[in-house]
Amino acid sequence: MVDTVSPLAPLQTPEMPPVDGVRLGTASSGTRYKGRPDVLIAVFDDGADVAGVFTRSKTCSAPVDWCRENLSDNRAHALAVNAGNANAFTGQAGKRAVEAVASGVSEALNCSAENVFIASTGVIGETLDPAPITDLIPQTVAQASPDGWLAAARAIMTTDTFPKVATRQLDIDGRTVTINGIAKGSGMIAPDMATMLAFVFTDAAVQQDILQKVLAAAVDKSFNAITVDSDTSTSDTVLLFSTGKSGAVVDALDDPAGQAFAGAVDSLLRDLAHLVVRDGEGAQKFIEIQVTGAESDAAARKIGLAIGNSPLVKTAIAGEDANWGRIVMAVGKSGESADRDRLAIQIGGVSVARSGMIDPDYREAMLEDHMNGGEIEIGVDVGVGSGTATVWTCDLTHGYIDINADYRS
Amino acid sequence: MVDTVSPLAPLQTPEMPPVDGVRLGTASSGTRYKGRPDVLIAVFDDGADVAGVFTRSKTCSAPVDWCRENLSDNRAHALAVNAGNANAFTGQAGKRAVEAVASGVSEALNCSAENVFIASTGVIGETLDPAPITDLIPQTVAQASPDGWLAAARAIMTTDTFPKVATRQLDIDGRTVTINGIAKGSGMIAPDMATMLAFVFTDAAVQQDILQKVLAAAVDKSFNAITVDSDTSTSDTVLLFSTGKSGAVVDALDDPAGQAFAGAVDSLLRDLAHLVVRDGEGAQKFIEIQVTGAESDAAARKIGLAIGNSPLVKTAIAGEDANWGRIVMAVGKSGESADRDRLAIQIGGVSVARSGMIDPDYREAMLEDHMNGGEIEIGVDVGVGSGTATVWTCDLTHGYIDINADYRS
Repeated sequence: MVDTVSPLAPLQTPEMPPVDGVRLGTASSGTRYKGRPDVLIAVFDDGADVAGVFTRSKTCSAPVDWCRENLSDNRAHALAVNAGNANAFTGQAGKRAVEAVASGVSEALNCSAENVFIASTGVIGETLDPAPITDLIPQTVAQASPDGWLAAARAIMTTDTFPKVATRQLDIDGRTVTINGIAKGSGMIAPDMATMLAFVFTDAAVQQDILQKVLAAAVDKSFNAITVDSDTSTSDTVLLFSTGKSGAVVDALDDPAGQAFAGAVDSLLRDLAHLVVRDGEGAQKFIEIQVTGAESDAAARKIGLAIGNSPLVKTAIAGEDANWGRIVMAVGKSGESADRDRLAIQIGGVSVARSGMIDPDYREAMLEDHMNGGEIEIGVDVGVGSGTATVWTCDLTHGYIDINADYRS
Repeated sequence: MVDTVSPLAPLQTPEMPPVDGVRLGTASSGTRYKGRPDVLIAVFDDGADVAGVFTRSKTCSAPVDWCRENLSDNRAHALAVNAGNANAFTGQAGKRAVEAVASGVSEALNCSAENVFIASTGVIGETLDPAPITDLIPQTVAQASPDGWLAAARAIMTTDTFPKVATRQLDIDGRTVTINGIAKGSGMIAPDMATMLAFVFTDAAVQQDILQKVLAAAVDKSFNAITVDSDTSTSDTVLLFSTGKSGAVVDALDDPAGQAFAGAVDSLLRDLAHLVVRDGEGAQKFIEIQVTGAESDAAARKIGLAIGNSPLVKTAIAGEDANWGRIVMAVGKSGESADRDRLAIQIGGVSVARSGMIDPDYREAMLEDHMNGGEIEIGVDVGVGSGTATVWTCDLTHGYIDINADYRS
């Protein structure tokens, strides 16, 4: 559908080390995409603990239902993902398709189907035939290897123009812990949750309640702080698997090991979330919005998202126009408290408005270079309190229309 | 900025009769637009009662502040509107500009400045120099005439591609009552309130509290039920003026006169609201969304707006794709109760989904003609209650990007 890579794609892709206890296999089911892998199976031969955060959509997909139900057991032996069909709004047939894939993987691995986590991404409302996927399972599981992280990230892509991976290594009690993440998503991206699919794998041994807390907190600061088009998917899924194979133990949140682990997961998820924005459908510019002076952090987030979701702000930036009047409008429409007569706006570090009106020293020429660039920084102080938030988004361009006016047909 | 008229513009413009007690004058200040009238002054020589509904933006414009303050007096001698500069986020200078225009009109009419209502529309954040407007006031007031409704509607246009007028006549106790309305708006259109500027004039004598109630109720069913781009203006203003010159009296809401008057205002505002959607920036298709089966009417409205604001739904319709999966997504993201497994969707009267999945009898070819047309009808039953709402919007096209990526520069 899209031949060109986003101009905001990172120039370099990190080397992805293996994560002890994780093997990856990909395959081509031909469900929707021809001639490319569209199935990913991650195998945890000795099992893994798992934490998950899911879409808040009231019309969530069959795989999301399945994962939510099976998260109670907290134990995973595999993750199976297919791209091209979201298996959402597919009724009983959708549930049966999930069960067929989970059963297929459980037979190949000799584990319980409840320990196979499932995710699907793609078109909503089309029945997913599981047979082309289940046929591939034995071979895919058999050939799965500790390498192939980039191939795994590619296999879960839909309208993405580049694979999204991130990695962290840290030392915990003298042992090296690896955390790898892959993600997909470029449209239908908005809180809650911001996205799409993201899977994080670590060889640390993390106590289950801590695993869930670390993931939820990291999602809140990353995927829940990005928006491409304000649309929330039926299928948003973030899963964090820990195999424990490194021998490093995380059993408290407030000790150095817990803090180091949480910090690494935070920054890894922020990386992945930024990659999703950088692949925002049609995006030409990456936009960071910092809101200060709000009544609370939550109010600041809401103001930031009102700015980040505003089609008028996003089209102005696409047109390289520092149209701060539209930022004022977006602050106003957020519904959160703001003191119009103390509002201050900076773009690219330049003060454009303060005390409720244009900064007398501001000239448009001061922002020409910044607006022509690919990275736009907006700072807004709403002058009523000490709440802060940072939100990331992209501009709204002809490319978004091109992609979405003929994605399905 | 835009040379071509929206393809959704009405083929015929209604003949606008005079409204007894209302004179209209227009003039060209050159504030932003050259070679076209951009100032409207409506004069009520013997005064008029007035009701108003305004934006809920926290960063509202100086004219909105002015109108809100002066509405307490409920009495108007004139309305002055300028297009091209919204006089919003302009600090003390903005307030002084409003006062200068109001003073100028009050001197010309020998009335109090507080009885002059002011509205401005256009770019946010640029200081409005009132002098080019105030210079024109004496001549404009002197030449104002009972005709020229279309010219008045033209004078308040910004990115609008056609003037928006509507009229109703009704009989109250043997007297003919006329209600005329004009509106402007094509972007930054979303509840609350949906818009822009709308001014309604009647020669009925309407008791003040009834005037306000009728207006508020009519706005709720019209301008608060449309969306072009989810953006809420700093300047949204709807004013209803009644001169009483027809001699027909409306002094109760629940008698035949009151109901007839309210019904006429309702349908006139709905006409104007539809015209705003039909001039939605870049719009190629007019979309009506009927939601049924919601927990409440408010929930139904929220679901309807979630669908109407979804960039993915709007781009799909632009691409003439009956992508009902995206409608499911939008229902899910609304946050309102919906029973996924009872959800039913109709497009153009054709059942496409029911009982939580695609209708087995549905074929895409059944909707080809409907999707290729200019008027799209979407019906969604969410299966949980008896709440209903109707919402109107337009598609999201390349035209929107064209207009908004270079509106200001």
